[in-house]
Amino acid sequence: MATVTIWNEYRHEREDDEVAAVYPDGIHATLADALEADHDVRTATLDEPEHGLTDEVLESTDVLLWWGHRAHDEVADDVVDRVQERVLEGMGLLVLHSAHFSKVFKRLMGTTCNLQWRESGETERLWVVDPGHPIADGLEEYVELPETEMYGEPFDVPEPDRLVFTSWFEGGEVFRSGCCYRRGNGRIFYFRPGHETYPIYENEEIRQVLRNAVEWATPTRGSPRTFGNRPRDEP
Amino acid sequence: MATVTIWNEYRHEREDDEVAAVYPDGIHATLADALEADHDVRTATLDEPEHGLTDEVLESTDVLLWWGHRAHDEVADDVVDRVQERVLEGMGLLVLHSAHFSKVFKRLMGTTCNLQWRESGETERLWVVDPGHPIADGLEEYVELPETEMYGEPFDVPEPDRLVFTSWFEGGEVFRSGCCYRRGNGRIFYFRPGHETYPIYENEEIRQVLRNAVEWATPTRGSPRTFGNRPRDEP
Amino acid sequence: MATVTIWNEYRHEREDDEVAAVYPDGIHATLADALEADHDVRTATLDEPEHGLTDEVLESTDVLLWWGHRAHDEVADDVVDRVQERVLEGMGLLVLHSAHFSKVFKRLMGTTCNLQWRESGETERLWVVDPGHPIADGLEEYVELPETEMYGEPFDVPEPDRLVFTSWFEGGEVFRSGCCYRRGNGRIFYFRPGHETYPIYENEEIRQVLRNAVEWATPTRGSPRTFGNRPRDEP
Amino acid sequence: MATVTIWNEYRHEREDDEVAAVYPDGIHATLADALEADHDVRTATLDEPEHGLTDEVLESTDVLLWWGHRAHDEVADDVVDRVQERVLEGMGLLVLHSAHFSKVFKRLMGTTCNLQWRESGETERLWVVDPGHPIADGLEEYVELPETEMYGEPFDVPEPDRLVFTSWFEGGEVFRSGCCYRRGNGRIFYFRPGHETYPIYENEEIRQVLRNAVEWATPTRGSPRTFGNRPRDEP
Repeated sequence: MATVTIWNEYRHEREDDEVAAVYPDGIHATLADALEADHDVRTATLDEPEHGLTDEVLESTDVLLWWGHRAHDEVADDVVDRVQERVLEGMGLLVLHSAHFSKVFKRLMGTTCNLQWRESGETERLWVVDPGHPIADGLEEYVELPETEMYGEPFDVPEPDRLVFTSWFEGGEVFRSGCCYRRGNGRIFYFRPGHETYPIYENEEIRQVLRNAVEWATPTRGSPRTFGNRPRDEP
Repeated sequence: MATVTIWNEYRHEREDDEVAAVYPDGIHATLADALEADHDVRTATLDEPEHGLTDEVLESTDVLLWWGHRAHDEVADDVVDRVQERVLEGMGLLVLHSAHFSKVFKRLMGTTCNLQWRESGETERLWVVDPGHPIADGLEEYVELPETEMYGEPFDVPEPDRLVFTSWFEGGEVFRSGCCYRRGNGRIFYFRPGHETYPIYENEEIRQVLRNAVEWATPTRGSPRTFGNRPRDEP
Repeated sequence: MATVTIWNEYRHEREDDEVAAVYPDGIHATLADALEADHDVRTATLDEPEHGLTDEVLESTDVLLWWGHRAHDEVADDVVDRVQERVLEGMGLLVLHSAHFSKVFKRLMGTTCNLQWRESGETERLWVVDPGHPIADGLEEYVELPETEMYGEPFDVPEPDRLVFTSWFEGGEVFRSGCCYRRGNGRIFYFRPGHETYPIYENEEIRQVLRNAVEWATPTRGSPRTFGNRPRDEP
Repeated sequence: MATVTIWNEYRHEREDDEVAAVYPDGIHATLADALEADHDVRTATLDEPEHGLTDEVLESTDVLLWWGHRAHDEVADDVVDRVQERVLEGMGLLVLHSAHFSKVFKRLMGTTCNLQWRESGETERLWVVDPGHPIADGLEEYVELPETEMYGEPFDVPEPDRLVFTSWFEGGEVFRSGCCYRRGNGRIFYFRPGHETYPIYENEEIRQVLRNAVEWATPTRGSPRTFGNRPRDEP
């Protein structure tokens, strides 16, 4: 059982009726519902003090989920610093859908994290290209999502350490939809599905991926990260 | 200018009228035509002595192209040994389409190199997912092939060092179609397009990829591969 | 708790008094002693029928350890086939010290797996270069081994997916001593320490690495590895 | 022939007699001397307007070398933005020695880039662990440097795409001293040697590495990096 913090921008759901109809209690509540049978789950949102991500919260978080879209720029840089520092120390991070453009993800990747997109409600097939990866545990060979926003290549991220999913879109595009990274001692998973106007986080297979990813990203014990001036060892 | 040897099984073209209509002089002749303006090109085929791959030929080859399909098992193991040894020393290797199942490729990958497939004549879009890679030089964002055999994931190969192309197929599948590997000092590129019943090697963009890949795979000078018992250096 | 099979060539210990003094019951017995508190452990050796690696044994093995040195060539190719097949299906494999030259490891890597070496009894420091990797759990920043056989670069293996340890040798060499690979669904870990004339597998930190590596290499559930002809899905 | 810009902090050489004795015209002048037979070389330093890295300079630079140490924090963030943007578009970047802590490198890596160090004047052996890599062209199996500052693991960077050099230090440490990355279309090479109080950039083998690395990092043509809203292609 991991301690999971779900961070959500939580603006769309309060300002847009179409989104509120899909995620009436916020995307974070739906994500929490997917995880709380197995984990100790709490949520945090942009408009809370320190965006809900105080030192205390981050110190006690094993895995952080991040969903944002329209207000990436409102995230304070010192909170981004803090999240980055915790990831390097070992905290897991799941970056969801439009959070590809979050400050946190761009900071950790060092690239623009840009891509192509189309709001088209078209069918997506999320193919497992690494069937031995624990994030794919228990899935069939692909997950089909009937209505999605398209994301297309190129995706301006570093080559992933492991690529778990590649998406096929009805309109003719492909996308690397499940990308694993290690930065410092932390495990990072970018997972594409999840637009605010489609109930994708209600899909049972997608929830299975999220549960698998939380387990995969949970910190292990590791060995010391010792830096700085090092005297010569006595022989 | 590299010395390029194009190896072709050369059975389909002699035994099957449909294939002969597409590649009347053999797939190797069409491949040679794509490369010979820039390189010193020769060809070799299965039914020649030593499959045309004598020590002399391999010693003087910078980049070897390999196309095979129905007679993989007829390739002699000592020729496979020789090709593997030369790749580890630095010879480049381009593995084309159905040669995913060649002895040479399976030997160098250590896996089954299996995949899913369908002979369906459907549209393929070969997306560039690594636009800075030299193998993609001069391409547009994707290459469209109107009639292809489908190859689908999972593709049982080691995670590529770099993934240059991912294919989208009309029927709903994706495939890692351009995979770069280094083994020893040799550069290996698996490139999916090229079924014997479609004139894919006449396509100018595909020929551009082949030219780029030959250039990328050409050996560089390197530094010593010294192995075995090593006395302690004097201080 | 995993089902672990420890395979040992078991020739040195029966034919050489110096080795018998270090590993009186065989290297496999010492390795078993390190693992059996946590796992269901059995052993197999070269001179047993089918080298002790029948279909039944391999089918029920989660993680296979492999130690060999002077008799690599006596391992039957059909046993190598069987081990490779099981690894691709998901069985973990730990390749120890001189087993870098085993048929099994060379088959899975596709390279010569050659290196430089010196029997010199010199000090080795095994540095953790990936402190967040679970195989390094609980270690200090390095493990010091007072008397070892030196292995030096270049090490003719594919670039590891993750490099956990790099060794420093008193005589002036370095070596990538802990290399992680995935082949098919199987996790492979090459771990350098372990010469037959030094009691390295009695070292408590080395035993910790072995326990960590068994845990890391234990198969997870995964998703289907489906290959072959694939009809088009109905829309 | 590439257009190379050598950026140097250029403070030590003007403020410290010991350094001035080693690099009387600045480290940038010595680096320029190593490269200008083969390339069109210019230099830029911290105390020039815009640190000498105007849009015009960066736009026309193929490969940028970066040396800094004591004044990393004085580099303006908008210049860092500009360098990052140019790297993602394809400009090569060579990050030298203490520039591991430069804003530019930390920005592109997403990690602290921290390490262990000791100013000890001890012997370093820079081993080639990837003898087929073009950055190692023409070297022997190692480069020996008689007096260096020690850098030790762990090195808090992402796992390199390819690791070309690993250093051995007399005092007992190892370090990944030659690390290749791709970010966007740009090639990045971190190269450890080069302390301000040792004439390491006068060493002919080190100069060979620098020349090789400039050649390796020079941009190739690539294919489009197209981002943003993408309408559906007409069938």
